[in-house]
Amino acid sequence: MQTPSITDITAYMERVGQNARNASRQIAKAGTQAKNAALLATANAIQAQQAELLAANQRDLDQGRANGLDNAMLDRLALTPARIATMIEGLHQVAALPDPIGEISNMRYLPSGIQVGQMRVPLGVIGIIYESRPNVTIEAASLCLKSGNATVLRGGSEAIHSNQALAQCIRAGLREAGLPESAVQVIETTDRAAVGAMITQPQYIDVIVPRGGKGLIERISADAKVPVIKHLDGICHVYIDDDADLEKAINVAVNAKTHRYGTCNTMETLLVAESIAAKVLPPLCEKLRNHNVELRGCERTRAVISDAILATEADWACEYLAPILSIRVVDGLDAAIEHINRWSSQHTDAIITENYSKSRRFLLEVDSSSVMVNASTRFADGFEYGLGAEIGISTDKLHARGPVGLEGLTSCKYIVLGDGHIRR
Amino acid sequence: MQTPSITDITAYMERVGQNARNASRQIAKAGTQAKNAALLATANAIQAQQAELLAANQRDLDQGRANGLDNAMLDRLALTPARIATMIEGLHQVAALPDPIGEISNMRYLPSGIQVGQMRVPLGVIGIIYESRPNVTIEAASLCLKSGNATVLRGGSEAIHSNQALAQCIRAGLREAGLPESAVQVIETTDRAAVGAMITQPQYIDVIVPRGGKGLIERISADAKVPVIKHLDGICHVYIDDDADLEKAINVAVNAKTHRYGTCNTMETLLVAESIAAKVLPPLCEKLRNHNVELRGCERTRAVISDAILATEADWACEYLAPILSIRVVDGLDAAIEHINRWSSQHTDAIITENYSKSRRFLLEVDSSSVMVNASTRFADGFEYGLGAEIGISTDKLHARGPVGLEGLTSCKYIVLGDGHIRR
Repeated sequence: MQTPSITDITAYMERVGQNARNASRQIAKAGTQAKNAALLATANAIQAQQAELLAANQRDLDQGRANGLDNAMLDRLALTPARIATMIEGLHQVAALPDPIGEISNMRYLPSGIQVGQMRVPLGVIGIIYESRPNVTIEAASLCLKSGNATVLRGGSEAIHSNQALAQCIRAGLREAGLPESAVQVIETTDRAAVGAMITQPQYIDVIVPRGGKGLIERISADAKVPVIKHLDGICHVYIDDDADLEKAINVAVNAKTHRYGTCNTMETLLVAESIAAKVLPPLCEKLRNHNVELRGCERTRAVISDAILATEADWACEYLAPILSIRVVDGLDAAIEHINRWSSQHTDAIITENYSKSRRFLLEVDSSSVMVNASTRFADGFEYGLGAEIGISTDKLHARGPVGLEGLTSCKYIVLGDGHIRR
Repeated sequence: MQTPSITDITAYMERVGQNARNASRQIAKAGTQAKNAALLATANAIQAQQAELLAANQRDLDQGRANGLDNAMLDRLALTPARIATMIEGLHQVAALPDPIGEISNMRYLPSGIQVGQMRVPLGVIGIIYESRPNVTIEAASLCLKSGNATVLRGGSEAIHSNQALAQCIRAGLREAGLPESAVQVIETTDRAAVGAMITQPQYIDVIVPRGGKGLIERISADAKVPVIKHLDGICHVYIDDDADLEKAINVAVNAKTHRYGTCNTMETLLVAESIAAKVLPPLCEKLRNHNVELRGCERTRAVISDAILATEADWACEYLAPILSIRVVDGLDAAIEHINRWSSQHTDAIITENYSKSRRFLLEVDSSSVMVNASTRFADGFEYGLGAEIGISTDKLHARGPVGLEGLTSCKYIVLGDGHIRR
């Protein structure tokens, strides 16, 4: 399977696209029970095929090592019994979520006598383009299936054997539930032309969700003819207001920076109101130093924290994804909002304040996908928000914004009920 | 103003874009009262400037005639006291609509203790590209303003004087309400490069809404780097089921075809279940003939309506926008749904039936932006749906589907309220 014998990529992708479009009609009208049955049968197949999955993954790992993948990449690529158990658990969780499809809302009678409302429906065919982690295959497929969509998945070439082994389990699950196997197709070639075909087939694919680094997502967005739900960087801010509670401010800021360094909802820049800077920064920075966080500050920050490195504009624009924090002392709320709306990646930003009016202004005026009061930016996550699952976090404004769960993979059509009504 | 002295379009559009982005921050946080004041002051300005508006429009009409515009185009271009009164009325109506911005919904406590919900926010900057009708300037600007967005409008070159005169009224209204004048900018040049700039400036424009013919919209969609809310054709169907009430079937079908011929929600193809064809088609076709509707039918239709012209596949794919109807006799519900999902433009499709189960299947399985039971397709309209106003009808699936009112010009961000909560 290393270099699959697919010589004509165009014809292959055409076939994949047509299969997906056809399957999407079937999966859109599949009942909740059939979709759940497919998810649980997939979980059982993964359980039963564990040895084969680990063997396929071992081939990827061996080849990755031979190709000089670094340890971080090899770690992301690796399947273990524990990770397989997490996948199985995830399938059970998605099966337990309420089915969003067919939900009818806001059915109101109008003066003409017709009754109008909306019905939640699948988007159709969802294309997922991702990098090395093979568990994305199961996560993405399960969310798309539950939301009544057909899926075309294109994983990283380094995970091809693992992904194909998982695809077999999914096909077995679909078959057992009486659903079309092509409702979930995992591209069988590592040829990059497959990605080019996926993002330029609006007749077959309704939306692309890329999961991976900023470079991948920018490349895909630039060339796509299909709408892309994208997630670029996460330059998140915490603003400690004049009226902040000191203990909350310190707890939240330390958590937002140090809970995990490599995640997109980690705080990268701390803003502090000048009137409170001398009080809050010394104890806060001591805690951050205990976590070995490198501190970079503006001149006013350095007046309080003398050993902070001088921050430049490049720091305000930087997603460190590392134990580094930039700190800026600002005059107050207006300056904080201005800084955030200028430098934030519109992912997640928080204010720490006890002031009612300032909390309201921050919520209204900060133009980010998640805006928080007195809570850690680390909460910006589909599970923490109660969505049950998450296919990604959107920093776009159209369609889905913030964590994207099942609903983000659906759309609403209008339905109109009449009794022979005609327009006058 | 005919050839505005804007020599450097790139620099001009850059300035327009920056102005719009800056104004969008102001207009996003403007209160309901200020936005309504601007709408009403614009209405007053239009009232006061009626003579100047008519004079500017006369210049466009004279030039249009000299350039050989046909009568239909000249009619669309013309402003009359009655049309001006309609614009003024429209501004009052939009002012009376509830303000969608800042609406908070679904605030729920989660196990971690945070409270999470969503706040409705503007999209930011909306670009409108439209053809000859100058009233679109006011309609689009008022909806974008009410929904807290800045707007960049690019009307047809044949309406440049009318649109600039209307732009003056809008600026006066914004000024009077203390809002930035650049919240609504009407492009001052007829140079087509302005359109090219608008659709490729995602840093300044968040979404493009084109209003005009299919050709315009396809061109814009093909080249846009900014998301487009688009409306292509309206190939709408009525399916008369075996279990249809004859009177409802005939009334709805006649209304859907003959109420207006040139609208996108007009029926273009009638589907009839074979078991009822001989009963329903003769009286229905007689009524259609009385409206001088040309009938084109499949072979089975012609077995009942012998003088119908033979329809070909090209008819199933055609938006006539004219007193022409194609008719196909189908085996039943399955064949009807299959025909619709194959040939419909996914705009609006209706079933006529008294059968409960078949009505449910039609609603669920027809993949169109409006799906109706026992009602005329002509109801697919923002006003008829109770949206209060409509910027267009979307045949897309992402973001907005069907008639797009104020809500379609907004998005929802997540808001999180805590009391110093941190992630464990």
